[in-house]
Amino acid sequence: MTAPTTGPPPASDPPTLLVLDADPLPRLGRLTGRARVEHADEATLAERLPHADVLLVWDFTSHAVRHAWPGEGPRPRWVHTASAGVDHLMCPELTASDTVVTNARGVFDQPIAEYVAALVLAMAKDLPRTLELQRSREWRHREGQRVAGTRACVVGSGPIGRTIVRTLKALDITTALVGRTPRTGIHGPDDLDRLIARADWVIAAAPLTEQTYGMFDTRRFGVMQPSARFINVGRGQLVVEDALAEALTKRWIAGAALDVFEHEPLTADSPLWGLPGLIVSPHMSGDTIGWRDELGTQFVELYERWEAGRPLLNVVDKQRGYVPGR
Amino acid sequence: MTAPTTGPPPASDPPTLLVLDADPLPRLGRLTGRARVEHADEATLAERLPHADVLLVWDFTSHAVRHAWPGEGPRPRWVHTASAGVDHLMCPELTASDTVVTNARGVFDQPIAEYVAALVLAMAKDLPRTLELQRSREWRHREGQRVAGTRACVVGSGPIGRTIVRTLKALDITTALVGRTPRTGIHGPDDLDRLIARADWVIAAAPLTEQTYGMFDTRRFGVMQPSARFINVGRGQLVVEDALAEALTKRWIAGAALDVFEHEPLTADSPLWGLPGLIVSPHMSGDTIGWRDELGTQFVELYERWEAGRPLLNVVDKQRGYVPGR
Repeated sequence: MTAPTTGPPPASDPPTLLVLDADPLPRLGRLTGRARVEHADEATLAERLPHADVLLVWDFTSHAVRHAWPGEGPRPRWVHTASAGVDHLMCPELTASDTVVTNARGVFDQPIAEYVAALVLAMAKDLPRTLELQRSREWRHREGQRVAGTRACVVGSGPIGRTIVRTLKALDITTALVGRTPRTGIHGPDDLDRLIARADWVIAAAPLTEQTYGMFDTRRFGVMQPSARFINVGRGQLVVEDALAEALTKRWIAGAALDVFEHEPLTADSPLWGLPGLIVSPHMSGDTIGWRDELGTQFVELYERWEAGRPLLNVVDKQRGYVPGR
Repeated sequence: MTAPTTGPPPASDPPTLLVLDADPLPRLGRLTGRARVEHADEATLAERLPHADVLLVWDFTSHAVRHAWPGEGPRPRWVHTASAGVDHLMCPELTASDTVVTNARGVFDQPIAEYVAALVLAMAKDLPRTLELQRSREWRHREGQRVAGTRACVVGSGPIGRTIVRTLKALDITTALVGRTPRTGIHGPDDLDRLIARADWVIAAAPLTEQTYGMFDTRRFGVMQPSARFINVGRGQLVVEDALAEALTKRWIAGAALDVFEHEPLTADSPLWGLPGLIVSPHMSGDTIGWRDELGTQFVELYERWEAGRPLLNVVDKQRGYVPGR
C-alpha cells in the first residue's frame, strides 16, 4: 500500500524525530544529521509531541500515544509503530487528523507463521506431555496425531494470516482463511462459524478492531469440535478469556495456546497459567533473533522515503485499524 | 523394491502364520481361512518357528527372533517385521538363509518427518523453556529463532530421511541428505563431516548397520557448531550416548532430542532424562493414531501377494540391513 506524500517539508531542519522509548535503537545511526532524534517516555510524551515532526513508537507495548495525542494543536505529521497492530495508539483525534500512521507490516509474518506451526506440531505430537513425563523420568509411549490432512481455519487475512496459511499448507494441512471482506481465496465473516465447526485448528491472527473485539466467545468455542485446538497470535482482546477457560475446563475443545492476552504482562495470579490444556507464552511469536534490527532498518527506509517526499509504505487505514490488503 | 517369489507353495494348507506377540492384530481377520494364525511369545518362539510358513514380527521391540532362529532346520520362508528397522531380528543364520525379510517401509515416513519438524520448531522457538516458565508463572519475553534459512543435514537417505528433507524444505530450511552411496541429490559418507560442521540441525534417520553403529561419537559432536542441535529418530545405537552427554554438558552443541536409545525403555535412573538441553521421548516419532491399523493393512496386502505367488514388496537386503533405495 502506498499513500500520497505527507504534505510540505517539515518545519524544522533537520526534522525532529521523537522516539517513544529510551532504549538504544539499531540502525538509527544512519539518520545522523538528517533527523534531530529526541526521546520521550510515558511521562514526557505529551509535552514533546507538539514539537515533533515524526513520532516513532518503538515501545509498542505502551498506550501513551492515545493519552498524549494533542487535539487540534501542532502534532507530528507521521507516526510509525514498530508493531503490526496499531490498536494501542489509535484514538479518535489521531483518526480524525491528517497525520499518517504506518506500521511494521512484513517483519513479523514468517516468524509468527513458524511459531504457529511449532504450536500445531507440538500439540499434535503431545510434546508438552512428553516434557512432563521426562521431568518425572517416566517412559510412557503414546500415539501422536498426523497433521497432514487435518483442517485449519485461520482468522485474519493480512500478511500474517496469509503467511500462516502458506506455512500450514506446506505441512499438507487443509486451510481456510477468513477476512473482513470475502474475495478470491478468502472467506467473509459469514462463513466463520461453519469453518470453525469443522476445523482441527482455529488460529486467530486478526487485528483488533470493533468487529474483532471479543469474537472468540462462549458461543464460538461451543461451535468448535471437541478435538479442536485454538491458537491466538493476534491480540488478546480477540478472545473472551473466561469463555476460553470454560471451554478448556469443560473439554469443549481439546487444547489451546495463547501468545497474547487481554492484560500483558500476565500477572502471576492469573488463572490462565494453570488451565488444563493451555500453553501460555509471553507475546513472543513474532520476535526472532535480529527482529529489532529489522524493525530499525524498516523504519530508516520509510524515513528516507518520507524525507525525499516519496509516498510512504504500510500506511494504516485509520478507520479500519490496519493496512488494507491486496 | 520387488523380489522373486519365495519358492514353492507352502507345506501346510492353509499356511501357518506365526505372530510374535499375543496382542490382537487389526486387519488380520481378513485372512480367516487363508492362514492358520498362531501366536508365540519370547518363550515359545524357538519351539514354534520350525513349523511356521510365515513369521510376522508384530512385537518389534523384541530381539527374540535373533535368538530363536533355527540354524539349518525347517524355518519360515518369509519374515515380516512391523517396523522400519530390521536390526533387532537379523542374525548370521537368517542372513545366510533363503528366507525373505520384509519391513514396514512407508508407514512411518510422514509421521516421523512431522515429528522432526515439531522438534526443530520447538527448539527454535524455545518451547520447552516457555512451558517451564509457565509452570512457575513467570512472564519472561525471549527471542525465538527463525528456522527459514537455517541449514539441516539429514543422515539416512531412505524414505524416512527423504520425507524429512521434503518437510524441512517446506519450512524453507536448506537441507543436505547423506546416504551410504552418493547419487543425485544424496551425499556420500565422505561429505558427512563437512556438512554437519555447518548445519544448524543434524538429524539421524539412518538404519542401524555396521557402518552406522556409533557414528555420532565424540569426534562428530566436536565437529558440530556450538549453535547446532542434534535429533535422533533412527536407532539408539547410532549415537554414543556418553559422547552426546559430554557434548551437551560442555556446550559443544546447543541442544538435542532423542526418540530412540541404546537400551529401551530408558530406565528411571538413566542420566539422559536430566541432561541440560536434551528432549527425551519414548520411541514414538512414527506412531500416530491409526498406525497399528496401517501396519496390519500393509501386512495383509503383502500376504495376499505372497499367497498368489507374486513378488513381495519392501524386501530387505539382508547383507546391508535395509531395503535398498531408488
